[in-house]
Amino acid sequence: MARPSKLAGRARDEALEALKAAGWTHDAGADTISRSFRFKDFSAAFGWMTRAALAAEKLDHHPDWSNVYNRVEVSLTTHDVKGLTELDVKLAEAMDAAL
Amino acid sequence: MARPSKLAGRARDEALEALKAAGWTHDAGADTISRSFRFKDFSAAFGWMTRAALAAEKLDHHPDWSNVYNRVEVSLTTHDVKGLTELDVKLAEAMDAAL
Repeated sequence: MARPSKLAGRARDEALEALKAAGWTHDAGADTISRSFRFKDFSAAFGWMTRAALAAEKLDHHPDWSNVYNRVEVSLTTHDVKGLTELDVKLAEAMDAAL
Repeated sequence: MARPSKLAGRARDEALEALKAAGWTHDAGADTISRSFRFKDFSAAFGWMTRAALAAEKLDHHPDWSNVYNRVEVSLTTHDVKGLTELDVKLAEAMDAAL
């Protein structure tokens, strides 16, 4: 898959608005989006992580994430372009859909 | 499973010695053990995480861990007793065995 370019202009504004409405936070300095997920227990958390991992592998785009028991902290950005791309939006949407 | 008590004395010294020989680092202040794992790619990293998650669930003892692409950082301790117990040793051994 060709590497997408950094989101800009109206497409970027609209994407960020939708992500924020869905519960994601945008760090403007690092140009990352992040979200904290909380589950019933470790099994539920890791079950979701597994579905998210399959989505990430399919997109060939991977999260920075950490897990402690029932909590998962996710941060997304596209290191190649040092900022957000369509891949981050797609992975965030896939993670939300996997809930 | 009854909560094990904090490792102490000779059992603790021997356990820490074996863990260090296997590549784990002991943080004496926090009384945690940690290890960085590196894999071929995300698929290999997450495959190992899945095996480690099954072992964690079986022990009913879970890691603090983070993943970025092919790297996984693991930190183990037993929050209930604010220190290392037999459960941490068993989970570390299971993680190493899952490599």
